[in-house]
Formats: sequence, structure tokens, C-alpha cells
Amino acid sequence: MKRMSLVIFSLFICMSMNAQQALLRGSVIVSPEINPDGTVTFRYQDPKAVKVQITGEFLEPTLVETPRGTMEVTLPVDLEEGDNGIWEYTTPEPVAPEFYNYNFIVDGKNVLDMNNVRINRDVATLTNVLLVGGDGLKDDYMIHRIPHGTVSKVWYHSDIAGFDRRMTVYTPAGYEETKIKYPVLYVLHGIGGDEDSWMTQGRATQILDNLIAEGKAKPMIAVFTNGNISEEAAPLENSTGYNVPTMNLPLTMEGTFEKSFTEIIKYVDSHFRTIAKKQSRAICGLSMGGFHSLYISLNNPDSFNYVGLFSAALGTGSERNSDVYQNLDVKLKAQFDREPALYWIGCGITDFLYKANLDYMKKLDQAGYQYTYMETGGGHIWRNWRIYLDTFVQLIFK
Amino acid sequence: MKRMSLVIFSLFICMSMNAQQALLRGSVIVSPEINPDGTVTFRYQDPKAVKVQITGEFLEPTLVETPRGTMEVTLPVDLEEGDNGIWEYTTPEPVAPEFYNYNFIVDGKNVLDMNNVRINRDVATLTNVLLVGGDGLKDDYMIHRIPHGTVSKVWYHSDIAGFDRRMTVYTPAGYEETKIKYPVLYVLHGIGGDEDSWMTQGRATQILDNLIAEGKAKPMIAVFTNGNISEEAAPLENSTGYNVPTMNLPLTMEGTFEKSFTEIIKYVDSHFRTIAKKQSRAICGLSMGGFHSLYISLNNPDSFNYVGLFSAALGTGSERNSDVYQNLDVKLKAQFDREPALYWIGCGITDFLYKANLDYMKKLDQAGYQYTYMETGGGHIWRNWRIYLDTFVQLIFK
Repeated sequence: MKRMSLVIFSLFICMSMNAQQALLRGSVIVSPEINPDGTVTFRYQDPKAVKVQITGEFLEPTLVETPRGTMEVTLPVDLEEGDNGIWEYTTPEPVAPEFYNYNFIVDGKNVLDMNNVRINRDVATLTNVLLVGGDGLKDDYMIHRIPHGTVSKVWYHSDIAGFDRRMTVYTPAGYEETKIKYPVLYVLHGIGGDEDSWMTQGRATQILDNLIAEGKAKPMIAVFTNGNISEEAAPLENSTGYNVPTMNLPLTMEGTFEKSFTEIIKYVDSHFRTIAKKQSRAICGLSMGGFHSLYISLNNPDSFNYVGLFSAALGTGSERNSDVYQNLDVKLKAQFDREPALYWIGCGITDFLYKANLDYMKKLDQAGYQYTYMETGGGHIWRNWRIYLDTFVQLIFK
Repeated sequence: MKRMSLVIFSLFICMSMNAQQALLRGSVIVSPEINPDGTVTFRYQDPKAVKVQITGEFLEPTLVETPRGTMEVTLPVDLEEGDNGIWEYTTPEPVAPEFYNYNFIVDGKNVLDMNNVRINRDVATLTNVLLVGGDGLKDDYMIHRIPHGTVSKVWYHSDIAGFDRRMTVYTPAGYEETKIKYPVLYVLHGIGGDEDSWMTQGRATQILDNLIAEGKAKPMIAVFTNGNISEEAAPLENSTGYNVPTMNLPLTMEGTFEKSFTEIIKYVDSHFRTIAKKQSRAICGLSMGGFHSLYISLNNPDSFNYVGLFSAALGTGSERNSDVYQNLDVKLKAQFDREPALYWIGCGITDFLYKANLDYMKKLDQAGYQYTYMETGGGHIWRNWRIYLDTFVQLIFK
């Protein structure tokens, strides 16, 4: 082993200085550090900084009264300067298991923790990720030594879009070993998201791996579509180059994607070993993806036996021109007459879509349609969407 | 469309303040901007900064004499401060097509361009990416509207490691549409790398997609292994949590991975539609991966018809204990007696492994063994490894 280390060391020192620079810098400080007592320490080195703060989802939000009602605001906390310009902050309490975003604020400027290579992109914003495992549901977000499913980036041709488009397909552990056919769950992202969002921010791969391994969810194929029908793929994965990721894409909630969904189902059913019938097909989505899920299932009442609306962007469909959104009451009757096995709604009490979701459920109640509702704290955030996926996945195909 | 924009706008302003912050900040400045004349402008906003510089591979390196010989050093250049604390640098000349890493240096501190969500991780170092397309080979690094292969993250069981391990598998466009069997190229990473490196830094998906679409390379399956046999997967994709990515892993160049390679071949041949014979199997790798490729092909002379050593870490094998590295001359004779269709070596003239590669070729020359050699400028860098892969892939399975 001594010889080994020597060789590695000489590899280090012999590299061209350009490469050396890339390899050696910035790895002296450990940040974040999950301490044995469960608290977390963040460190940032900058002797010239006057004020270093951190903001992130691991901090308790403060409730602030605004003209629009009570809102949650996360106030940054200060790091303290120690030796060598190393600033430090340790949480006063153990940090609960969760997938958190955070970043430093150095003299008023948002900067990343360069000692933490775990980076998250939310539309056009980069933050660091703090991932804390532990007991309970949130431990489903961690990677464990269990059988893992395969995650594939697959391109299908869309006649409606006029070009090839990308989706992410999860096939469960064992898929390659047998000839078994599997049920399919379609999982849709929100505005500004793409076919990667549920994997990077939603921990969908880990949730599925863990629940299937524990026997809490049926082995299933999961398909993560890209709901921006004007795009080929996620912002950096298409041929248009350097466009800054944006929430303001054309053709996102005007019916085209919903209509094109039959192309996706056809592709999936012809390229994967699916049970290609309603009883074994589910659809769910967050925010815009919840809106999409509502109307895709509504217009294809014989296609989906399980529907999940996560903080769905409801209440605006009837204002839209496409026939996809017309005759909601008539179509809902047709959908519920066919008795879907599960119509599931989840929303957070501080979500700006909370009232729209309550209104929608009132409509369902008045018509006597069966649905399941889960209410959580918090608002329009990934923390809720991971909980909803984890919950929904355990209820379907059973 | 007006109604659409309104709805999107209200989605924006209604979000909880926490989410709003994440969605709206940091997207006012465009950086990098590829100008119509081919120059590139970088921008950084910080009214409090005293000095803002940029360093990156797009800058001409300066040759510096050192006791170890001439080395390439990239000297950072200054950005100029304009209105609103926006610092700017425009390259004096058009930037040639290439995949470049860069970062800002603000008052001596390396920071990322937060307006560019294209981030690269090289071992434990984060940089931004500038990707410039254009004519010639380097345009193979771009995504074009052509048929795309599928890229899958696949887990196989390694008896030798004692746990499941991940690899990246590329199947060419059309793989799912036919029953054709394909040749297989195994592509190995360098020290500190993993099964993602060739996709993130090597642009392997794009190189394969483009060359296959142009008819310059045969449709093939490509398998990107993880050569760190002590690890399940890339640093953030395994069950060990927050370990900082490192070049100093155990069991990287001591024979275990080379011996376990037959497990990988067996898995690939039993799970993908491969032509499971020597004539249709190739192996290549960079640096440590070139070292691995040499010894894996050497110890399995009936397995690989094409071998590619890219800046291979040669010259240290005979010092190592494992039987994998013993009897090089005898094994080389056995390998070359079987006349591999291509034994390909690529190295840069300023590579710290240049002399070791020349020495190895001298040995091959003395024995009269046939090989192909490509010499490039530059050193031990991804710019060369992308060129080598692009070149090698066009020569195999023909």
C-alpha cells in the first residue's frame, strides 16, 4: 500500500499545473459536516469577508403577516469567524432527516459552498444540498445497500412536437432478470421543471428503490416525462444550447402536452414490459404536473386507474381555450362513473394553491365523487412533493 | 397567449417567499454570452469586489520553465467593472469550438458563475462549463437534432466486491426497435473519476450519437464502468453518504478491478444484445483507465480485438504485487500473437506520462508488435481524451 500511495502522490505532483489546480484546491475544509449528535456544521473560508450568513430549508421559517396573508420567510443566520478566516455555523439542534437546499450569503451575495459538490438546480438557481438520513419516511430519500432499479434517459419521437423528446424511465430491480410485465406510474413535473427534476429534487429513484425493496410498494415502471412540449429535453440536454432555464416557456398549459400524452403511453407500452391497461396505469404530478395529470386522466378516462394531484395548479382550466379543458363536469362524471381505484389529492396549508384545491374538492364532494386527501404543513415546496410521492406510491397497484 | 403569461406571472408572484427567492434571483445577467462574432463575454455582478478575474481552459496557456521541465500555466485575466457593479470580460478573439471549464476569482477566491447553471465536477472541484460548437471534430461534443441513444444507470452484482455496483450503459439509437446484436466498447475513467465522468466531462454520449448518426462510427453499445472497486458508485450515488470525492481511494491499481472485469463482461453479455465475442469487443480508458485497459486486455487475450490507451498511466505495473501485472513480456506476446485488430495509443507531448508512453512503445517496437499512435499537443487533460475517444471510436468494429 505504501508503494500505491507513492504512485498516487506522484500522479498528483506530476500533473500539468492546470490540472493540479483543479485537483488540489478547495478540499481542505469539510462542509457540511453531520456531527455525531445530529447537529450540522457549515464552514466557509474567506478572511476578507465582513459578514457570512447561511440560508436554507433546514432553518426554522418565520411566519410573517403580509397583505396576501401569512407567509413563511427563512431568515439567514450568521456564521462566526474563527482562525484562518474560516467561518462556521453549527445548528443548535439535531437536523431532522430531509433533503435540504442551502447557500451562503457573503457580504450580501449568494454563493455556493464549494466544499460540497452536491449541487441542486431549481429552474435557473443553483444551491447546495444537505441530505440527512434517519428513521421514518425521510430515510427513503437515502441510498441504501438494497437492489437498485435502472434509470434510463430515453428519447421518443413526438409527431405532435415534430422532434424527438427525452424522458426518464425507471425500471425496478429485477426487471432485466425476468419476463414479468409491470404496472406503470407516470410522474409529471411542475413549471420550470423537466424530466430530471423528480430525480434530482424529488429523490424519486431512492423512494422507489426503498419502498419496493421493503415491500411497501409494488415493483413498477416509473416514467418521468418532460411537460414542456416546445422543448426536446432538459435545458442543458437539448440542441438549443445556452438558453437560461426558465419558467416562461411557451405551450406548457394550453393542451398540447396533454394531447401528446397518448404518444408517450404508446411508446412506453411498446418499448417496456408494461401491463398495458387501465388497471395497471397511474399518473401523478406536482403543481403544473398536477394540472396536467388532472386533464390527461380526465380526457382519457379508460387509461388511468390511479390519479395523484400534488399541490396541483387547479382552478384555471375553464379559462383556457383548448378543448382539453372544456366540459369539466361532463368529463368528471364520465371519469368517476368508471370508478378509478384511487383519486388522490395532496396540498400544504400555506400553499398559494390551497384554496383552489379546497374548491376543487368541494366540487368533487358535491358530485359525490370519492377521493383521498392528504393535508400537510408548508407550502408549494419539494419537501411536500417527496412526501406525496412516497405516500401515493404505496397506495397504487394493490 | 396573453392569458397564459398572466397565469404564469401570477404563479410567480403567489409563490411562498422561500420559493420566490429560489426562482427569481440571479438570472438578470447573461453569462457566458457567445457573441455573433464568436467571441465570448463573461459577466459577474459584485459592487463590493475589488478585483474580479476569470481563469479557464479557453485562455491561452503560458509556457513556464520549471525544474521538472516546461509546464503550461493558465494565467487569469481581469474583468472590468461597469455599471451596477457588473464586471465583464470579452475574449479578444473568437473562441474555438470546445468544452471548456472556467471559474471566476473574486478578490483571490475561486467562485462559480451563478448565472451559468452548467456546472462540472472534476473529482472534488466544481467549475462552470463553456460549451462552444462549430465545424469539425469538436462539433461532435454538441447535441444535435439526430437520433439519440439511450443512457442508463445500471447496477450489477460483483461477487468480488461483495455488493452491487453501478455502471453507465449507452445503447445506440434504434437498439429498442430491432433485434440486432451490437458490438461493445468498454470505456474506463481515470483516478478520481467514476461511471459518470465520460458523460459529464468526456461528452461520450454526444460523440457516440453524432458519429453513429453521420455513419462515421458503427452503431455500438458503450459501457462506462466504475474502476474504484471499493465503491458502489460515483461519490454522491452510493450508500456511504457525504464522503468528499477523492483520488485517494483504496484498491484502484492493485489488480482487483482488473480481475473483476470478467463479471462486468458477463453481466453486459447476458443483459444486452451484444455480439459476445472478441471480434466485437473493444476496451479503452484514460490515465488509470488506460493502465486498466492494458492489463485487462493483456490478461484476457481472447476477449478484446481493439485496445485504446489514452494518456495511459504506464510504467509502474511491474512494481506491483498482483499477478495481474506480472510477466508482461510473455503476456504481451500471447496478446499480439493473436493479432488484435487495433492497438491504439494516444498521448499529449506535455503529459507527465509522455515518456512512460514512449518507453512502452519502444518495447512494442522492439518486439515488432503493431500499434497505432496519435500524438497531440497539451497534457493530461480532458481536451485530449475527448479527441482520442472521437478518433478511436471511428476505427473500431470495421
